[in-house]
Amino acid sequence: MNLADLVKSLQDFEGVSRKKSIESITDKLKEVYNVSGETLLDFGDDASAIDLGDGNVVLFAADGIWGKLMDADPYWAGYCSVLVNVNDIAAMGAKPIAMVNILSINNENIANGLIDGIKDGCKKFNVPMVGGHLHPDTEYNALDVAIIGIAKKDKIITSFGANVGDKIIVAIDLDGRQHPNFNLNWDTTYFKDEKLVQDQLIAMKEIAEKGLVTGGKDISNPGTLGTLEMLLESSGVGGKVELNKIPRNEDVNWEEWLKSYPGAGFVLTAKEKNTEELINLLEEVSITASIVGEVISEKKLYLSSETEKMVLFDQDKNPVLKIN
Amino acid sequence: MNLADLVKSLQDFEGVSRKKSIESITDKLKEVYNVSGETLLDFGDDASAIDLGDGNVVLFAADGIWGKLMDADPYWAGYCSVLVNVNDIAAMGAKPIAMVNILSINNENIANGLIDGIKDGCKKFNVPMVGGHLHPDTEYNALDVAIIGIAKKDKIITSFGANVGDKIIVAIDLDGRQHPNFNLNWDTTYFKDEKLVQDQLIAMKEIAEKGLVTGGKDISNPGTLGTLEMLLESSGVGGKVELNKIPRNEDVNWEEWLKSYPGAGFVLTAKEKNTEELINLLEEVSITASIVGEVISEKKLYLSSETEKMVLFDQDKNPVLKIN
Repeated sequence: MNLADLVKSLQDFEGVSRKKSIESITDKLKEVYNVSGETLLDFGDDASAIDLGDGNVVLFAADGIWGKLMDADPYWAGYCSVLVNVNDIAAMGAKPIAMVNILSINNENIANGLIDGIKDGCKKFNVPMVGGHLHPDTEYNALDVAIIGIAKKDKIITSFGANVGDKIIVAIDLDGRQHPNFNLNWDTTYFKDEKLVQDQLIAMKEIAEKGLVTGGKDISNPGTLGTLEMLLESSGVGGKVELNKIPRNEDVNWEEWLKSYPGAGFVLTAKEKNTEELINLLEEVSITASIVGEVISEKKLYLSSETEKMVLFDQDKNPVLKIN
Repeated sequence: MNLADLVKSLQDFEGVSRKKSIESITDKLKEVYNVSGETLLDFGDDASAIDLGDGNVVLFAADGIWGKLMDADPYWAGYCSVLVNVNDIAAMGAKPIAMVNILSINNENIANGLIDGIKDGCKKFNVPMVGGHLHPDTEYNALDVAIIGIAKKDKIITSFGANVGDKIIVAIDLDGRQHPNFNLNWDTTYFKDEKLVQDQLIAMKEIAEKGLVTGGKDISNPGTLGTLEMLLESSGVGGKVELNKIPRNEDVNWEEWLKSYPGAGFVLTAKEKNTEELINLLEEVSITASIVGEVISEKKLYLSSETEKMVLFDQDKNPVLKIN
């Protein structure tokens, strides 16, 4: 696949285009984002931070599971509902402390699979599911999870801090497998020792507390570069990335790899002087991190191969978030 | 309506029977309720409490809106999604600090109504909606909200503290109206000054901090006595209640009144010596509270009129929660 085809495929990717319908909803709720005066962070990060007034913040996020995934593999959907929420909090350098779920169930078998997956996810990541709500009489199946985490107020990693000149780092655990039913799920946790999985969360917290990054986000449905674009849009900047520097498990082709949702994967921005320590800390927990490019002022994300350079996202023409 | 007919109607009420399917789900998730060792409270309260280790707890709850309500009146569904969550936290004597929502939308008009209702709810109760997740391509409409609150660890009101001999108090704001489309919604907030509505929340926090109650719960879908039964079941006790002592707005008949979901309504248990101060504090914020009966050891809820006495709920035969 040449660069032009890859760029086209990533631009048309459902994981990216699906984000766009968020715009009108988020816009309308901005007005009540901070009615109490205690909400930190701008609208649009993975989680919001609420100031407890004692130097700590509670991070608070919610994530839903695609209906498709739930119908195809309820167990994996349950497991992933924990994974994606834990990653939202970990990517911000916070400690995930509890989840609640909202289940809509019309089928006992699906319910049982979901519950088993949720239980195994809670044990793997050591985060309790402390309650929830059940809609017992719906005509559809749905699973949503909300999560809270705790962090020091001035030590959280956000999507808003990337500065021109910062290095862009892609960090992914390469020790994994494509899920047999979902080739875009790069599973790095299910078969892995729970201590290492939990140490990966702790590593992000350590990185946050040491102030090693200026911005960060966990790689989710929009894939590596779609997620990076969201980070850059939130920070009001652009970037240039060299394809061949992105860490990859070579069993997976570039197109699938860049659309994948990794069990442990982050896009980060950092001052050059901090990159070595950052990369080493991640390497210790099986996450391969590399400098892949640089933050620029022009609001475009350029992707280059050895011979070509193309615009992947242009915030005026094809943004991912459209929140700015 | 005689007492026997009223009892039968309350036993068959959908708001009560619907709770029972929760049993199998909650049972299965008990195992991961406290994997991290930081979860306080038993499974089954309105909200769970996570120990922050500094004397404070974060309360965390989720509640969904019935599909019926959402299709019939999206604006009111949005407003109520805030109300029910805020009441879950307030009933525990905590300060609600933030919410997130999960929306599944297949219809722009419904979405707009929901959003407007959510916004007005946030302003009324002074609690921000700080984020959420949108499923933009579902075949159904659904709205779920999760909420967090903060409280002192040793000052929360739970469903687990009612003791034999405690007085049972029903506390409801009688200044309201039946919602024109939903006769079981006893709306006490929409047309009321937001300061008074917010003062009602603060009053519950003050009651908690003064240690005036042994147990408490906000009156929700199961109605006044169904909610009381949930509280008694969670505490492993029973109760006897005199119908005519329950505060009521006399524009509403007993059957509808006892099935209603009030904007501000609580069932509480308290030591007799604390009841006067408790009742006075609630009266100051337009909530009429009365001693309606007493906690007993026999695990039944008796309801009596001037001439008769009947068993409304029997924890062996027709419990509401079945969690014990």
